[in-house]
Amino acid sequence: MRHVDLSVYLVLDPGLCGGFDGMVETSRAAAQAGATVIQLRAPTWKKRALVECARAIKQAVAPWNVPLIVNDHADVCVAADAHGLHVGQNDLTPQDARAIIGPDRVLGLSVSNESHLNAVDARIVDHLGIGPVFATTTKLDADPAVGLDGFARLAARKPCPIVAIGSVTAQCAPDLIRLGADGVAVVSAICGQPNVAEATQRLVRALRAAREGGTVAL
Amino acid sequence: MRHVDLSVYLVLDPGLCGGFDGMVETSRAAAQAGATVIQLRAPTWKKRALVECARAIKQAVAPWNVPLIVNDHADVCVAADAHGLHVGQNDLTPQDARAIIGPDRVLGLSVSNESHLNAVDARIVDHLGIGPVFATTTKLDADPAVGLDGFARLAARKPCPIVAIGSVTAQCAPDLIRLGADGVAVVSAICGQPNVAEATQRLVRALRAAREGGTVAL
Repeated sequence: MRHVDLSVYLVLDPGLCGGFDGMVETSRAAAQAGATVIQLRAPTWKKRALVECARAIKQAVAPWNVPLIVNDHADVCVAADAHGLHVGQNDLTPQDARAIIGPDRVLGLSVSNESHLNAVDARIVDHLGIGPVFATTTKLDADPAVGLDGFARLAARKPCPIVAIGSVTAQCAPDLIRLGADGVAVVSAICGQPNVAEATQRLVRALRAAREGGTVAL
Repeated sequence: MRHVDLSVYLVLDPGLCGGFDGMVETSRAAAQAGATVIQLRAPTWKKRALVECARAIKQAVAPWNVPLIVNDHADVCVAADAHGLHVGQNDLTPQDARAIIGPDRVLGLSVSNESHLNAVDARIVDHLGIGPVFATTTKLDADPAVGLDGFARLAARKPCPIVAIGSVTAQCAPDLIRLGADGVAVVSAICGQPNVAEATQRLVRALRAAREGGTVAL
């Protein structure tokens, strides 16, 4: 019931997308082009705007049935009736978050090291974001990069589906899938790209090729 | 059921109080000295720390039965099982907030002008914070000050109990009570004061004297 297709997981950035309208339009174009999850993340925004933006994105991507996940704010998630919530290690605990969003919404958790991984309760958490794989500029308080080796070590012990995050591109996506990722989460590989649809399709093709074990023309 | 005594309403400031421990200690000392409500407000903090701090404050003030109200975050309010929530005009709408905190918790709303006041639904909102009465330095995104005249005009039309906020001191508290305030909300009149207990008691005495219609030695 709480499964989502993590293949191409778009994390919105209000700066790169150009604010409220830019995030809605990026979501629409990415959903049409094959993005499978969209996360609304705008850490400096007030909640009134977050709820309104979440509702607008939900409506924009409804034709493609793409789930919307809200970053950090369980209250915004519930108010906007989003599909799920994503929390980091300094946000609500997964237990507290689950109590607020209820049993039916999807709950993702960011994991950056073995200690985080050991603490995961896969009865509460539905999937993990593992990273940052490479150093990132779109999250100011990110943990140190784990690299492909670190990702592989964490992925080998995954207790639930995982998505790789942290400067992930269509170029490295096939490697991450082969190392155990169920999908790739991207920010700047889609947000602010001159052609959001093409950027999304590159990721979709890269994922498909990696799963089919063939080669891919990016 | 959702009534709180608004008389001396302390809004915590992590900077002035000296962080987590300072906010807990300020809360304890103020509750013991007669503060009637405590609001946890730390807009730059992550939620893990907010929930932990809310729980610590609840425990610290339990001997005096002082209610704890969480600013902005309905999810933190529920996770910490706080007594209530306070929202501003850019936070969750009162309707969205009420749906998350449930029917039994107290809900306060910030109001700065006639238009805000006209929109208040007193079936959903339990009390209002009206202000800023005077220009404030402890809230960076505050609306323009309404002044004593503006406060009086808004207070005359109050649909529910109100607390005056915005650089309120023991000196001006009696005037605000006479103009219709049910209590005064303070930040720097308590937070960071050399003697939190004495600072709180000054406010308690000022309120009592204003209600008894007598004069007061501050």
